[in-house]
Amino acid sequence: MVTMTRRSMLRGAAGLSLAPIGSTPLLAAAAGPAAPGAAPSPAKDVTRTLARYVVGARYDDLPPDVRKEGVRTFLNWVGVAIGGSHHQTVDVAVAALAPFSGPPQAGLLGRTERFDIMNAAFLNGVASHIFDYDDTHLKTIIHPAGPVASAILALAETTPVTGRDFLNALVLGVETECRIGNAVYPNHYDVGWHITGTTGVFGSAVAAGKLLGLDERQMVWAIGLAASQPVGLRESFGSMNKSFNPGRAASNGLFAAILAARNFTSSNEMLEAKRGWANTISTKQDYAEITEGLGQRFESALNTYKPFACGIVMHPAIDAAIQLRNEHRLTADQIQAVEIRVHPLVLELTGKQTPREGLEGKFSIYHAVAVALVEGGGGEKQFSDRAVRDPVIVELRGRVVPTVDAAVKPEQVDMTIVLKDGRRLHKYIEHAIGSLEVPMSDHDLEGKFTDLAEGVLPARQARHVIELCWELEGLSNVAEIAAAGVAV
Amino acid sequence: MVTMTRRSMLRGAAGLSLAPIGSTPLLAAAAGPAAPGAAPSPAKDVTRTLARYVVGARYDDLPPDVRKEGVRTFLNWVGVAIGGSHHQTVDVAVAALAPFSGPPQAGLLGRTERFDIMNAAFLNGVASHIFDYDDTHLKTIIHPAGPVASAILALAETTPVTGRDFLNALVLGVETECRIGNAVYPNHYDVGWHITGTTGVFGSAVAAGKLLGLDERQMVWAIGLAASQPVGLRESFGSMNKSFNPGRAASNGLFAAILAARNFTSSNEMLEAKRGWANTISTKQDYAEITEGLGQRFESALNTYKPFACGIVMHPAIDAAIQLRNEHRLTADQIQAVEIRVHPLVLELTGKQTPREGLEGKFSIYHAVAVALVEGGGGEKQFSDRAVRDPVIVELRGRVVPTVDAAVKPEQVDMTIVLKDGRRLHKYIEHAIGSLEVPMSDHDLEGKFTDLAEGVLPARQARHVIELCWELEGLSNVAEIAAAGVAV
Repeated sequence: MVTMTRRSMLRGAAGLSLAPIGSTPLLAAAAGPAAPGAAPSPAKDVTRTLARYVVGARYDDLPPDVRKEGVRTFLNWVGVAIGGSHHQTVDVAVAALAPFSGPPQAGLLGRTERFDIMNAAFLNGVASHIFDYDDTHLKTIIHPAGPVASAILALAETTPVTGRDFLNALVLGVETECRIGNAVYPNHYDVGWHITGTTGVFGSAVAAGKLLGLDERQMVWAIGLAASQPVGLRESFGSMNKSFNPGRAASNGLFAAILAARNFTSSNEMLEAKRGWANTISTKQDYAEITEGLGQRFESALNTYKPFACGIVMHPAIDAAIQLRNEHRLTADQIQAVEIRVHPLVLELTGKQTPREGLEGKFSIYHAVAVALVEGGGGEKQFSDRAVRDPVIVELRGRVVPTVDAAVKPEQVDMTIVLKDGRRLHKYIEHAIGSLEVPMSDHDLEGKFTDLAEGVLPARQARHVIELCWELEGLSNVAEIAAAGVAV
Repeated sequence: MVTMTRRSMLRGAAGLSLAPIGSTPLLAAAAGPAAPGAAPSPAKDVTRTLARYVVGARYDDLPPDVRKEGVRTFLNWVGVAIGGSHHQTVDVAVAALAPFSGPPQAGLLGRTERFDIMNAAFLNGVASHIFDYDDTHLKTIIHPAGPVASAILALAETTPVTGRDFLNALVLGVETECRIGNAVYPNHYDVGWHITGTTGVFGSAVAAGKLLGLDERQMVWAIGLAASQPVGLRESFGSMNKSFNPGRAASNGLFAAILAARNFTSSNEMLEAKRGWANTISTKQDYAEITEGLGQRFESALNTYKPFACGIVMHPAIDAAIQLRNEHRLTADQIQAVEIRVHPLVLELTGKQTPREGLEGKFSIYHAVAVALVEGGGGEKQFSDRAVRDPVIVELRGRVVPTVDAAVKPEQVDMTIVLKDGRRLHKYIEHAIGSLEVPMSDHDLEGKFTDLAEGVLPARQARHVIELCWELEGLSNVAEIAAAGVAV
């Protein structure tokens, strides 16, 4: 049922960036205080309308599928944050910031150190983006959980919060960043901004502000202070700076909310003013995406999760390989050739034939297909130096034969495996696992979590964290999850 | 002699935004590693050229007038930070951030609290911009000292630094932000960015990085991480968020430098890449402004200081009023009328005839002229509620008669005071005090400092801080100034 809802939402959203969903009279009226009979003025009261909605929105108002997707978003985020927690990027940042950190208020998932909440939010946010394996709002390519969950999990360690209130804040934060993203995407992204960082700071500010109990006026200022601190350029991709962006969005948004809670003032119309955020940072401003249908349609329910730790362009082929392997219990020595028909982008972006280290494997369709056939997965372990140098996989990747076909869509693949005994096995993928149409199951998400936590937390502890995440809405204090997710 | 140099620099700079100063063969060669015989490629190696210069630049290389202006920049900044230190904006921020601050590493000028260096940098940066009374790089309207001095004074409390090294870092930071500002001004400012915050983060990062001893590679990354954290929109003007911007630029730059010092990586060409900072954040990119004539021409020597605590558009009239008052020992009861011919902008921006509180007085040419005649000044005290409600000043402001004249330039005024005894006193101002052409003297700067510190620090303590600032280059540890400038 969840899947049906998500599908219909996707269809509803397609191609509607200028004629937003929910623009029925009823929903338009709900969007803000327009003068009776006046034509809609989309650039009016945008910040205030959003703030008013966030301040008033209750957990009880969230539809069941939105709640469920929020829990899945959180579980996936905890997993990727634990998985990335011992990467060199985090080690470096922990060492750099430790001398300046405040009281040990909040933990780092997967690690032993404790930091003040600003630094903890930053560091968990960095860790969760390390493998490019986090969640994706496909309409905007925003990775929504990092900035929001990092901020409010840290806050939850100093300000006790129930699971329901936490989930409500998480959904509102994700909703805010994705809606603001819709308003400026694609122009804003195309010009060079890392949209996860620039919109993420709003998500963090709004979610933290919700937990801090900001009133409408303060929430307006929190949004204004968030708008003053956009984070991230696409030019940073390929360096540690990429993971920096969602982390800094988390701490910047938290900083904004904490100041606003003490009545540190900002503009009352920072999003929509002539020299406000949207006009300054984008050549496209579709304010209706922010204000219309609030509480009615949920961008947060459109969140997706990567099943494989690499660019989405290789996912259909990996999916096909795993399915054929499992259906036919294939082993590498049976395989003569793997023929795939793919969209041209696949070879353009991932055409590396002889990757020499794990990271290069993420840009090799040859390796991705071979390792999926040998190991039945596409997780971080399958893109390690070990996997890329495995002789069996190296041998098999030489038998992968891609053919470019413009008629194949990027989300499709057509795979034929020719066996040494002459049989030909065929698999066509219309939408890969992890897409909105074929979402990862709860079981898949657990498997991804378990893989990520392996080597970081004992299996039993990881299992406990997974269970706590599923039970989120029943928890009386979310700090329990933060405590359960750190290394001991 | 200093003044001469500054004037010639100004002339050299006028109207040359597309044909940058210093583009002689000698200086172009000094700007970076161009292939022999190749045409200059202004978008190449911009970040690296800047980083290399900053890493190599020594105090001994600074021309005497640049050193002197750097000391004046610092003195002025300490004064405005002390002056703003007890404003409600700072009180609110101190209360909000105290629970999350790290060790008490650095003081707040004019106050008793101590914070970790990131928060101290933020709070001193906020305080120094409160009265809009700080320094101005007129070519870009950047207020350069706030982001840079706030960061490195805080750093100096944990990392001992001599006055010479501190001054060198200050100059390099100011140089960096103003040059980057030149590269994108005016387009970047016109679209809505608060240029002090967006370029200030570079100044802070580079100056802090210099004191932390970053190598060239690390300095490149510090610039990249700074580019990922621009701060501030013009829409925030009129709220506490305006002062937030230089403060957050200071802490963001410091954050960038501290991470880079541990080898947290970024892009190697963040300023100039296709999707780098300048292309993303501005429609104008004049990279030669960043890379040419480094170490030869100094934007930091073009810094100016406001003699009056209000918009620059009223400065000529205040200057004229004070001069006539002092020359003729005028008292309010002698004056029949004050006739001024002004540029149209004066009435457009400051035409408020009956201000009711101090802040409104900053937008009233009537009040500004009257209070200058009565009290002989235009400091923060002259724009207080007390001054605006003083019956003598209120009476006199009714006798101020402005006439708009498009032939009068914004930096000019023509004032005639008609006395009750029939005499007419005349003063024409070509350039007001505080301009590049008529800079504030050292004595003027001391008077401004003393006024700002009154009521915050005892007069004797303020005098001591002034003396320490003048002696900056002889100090063995700049933490001495930080210690002398806090309330006890």
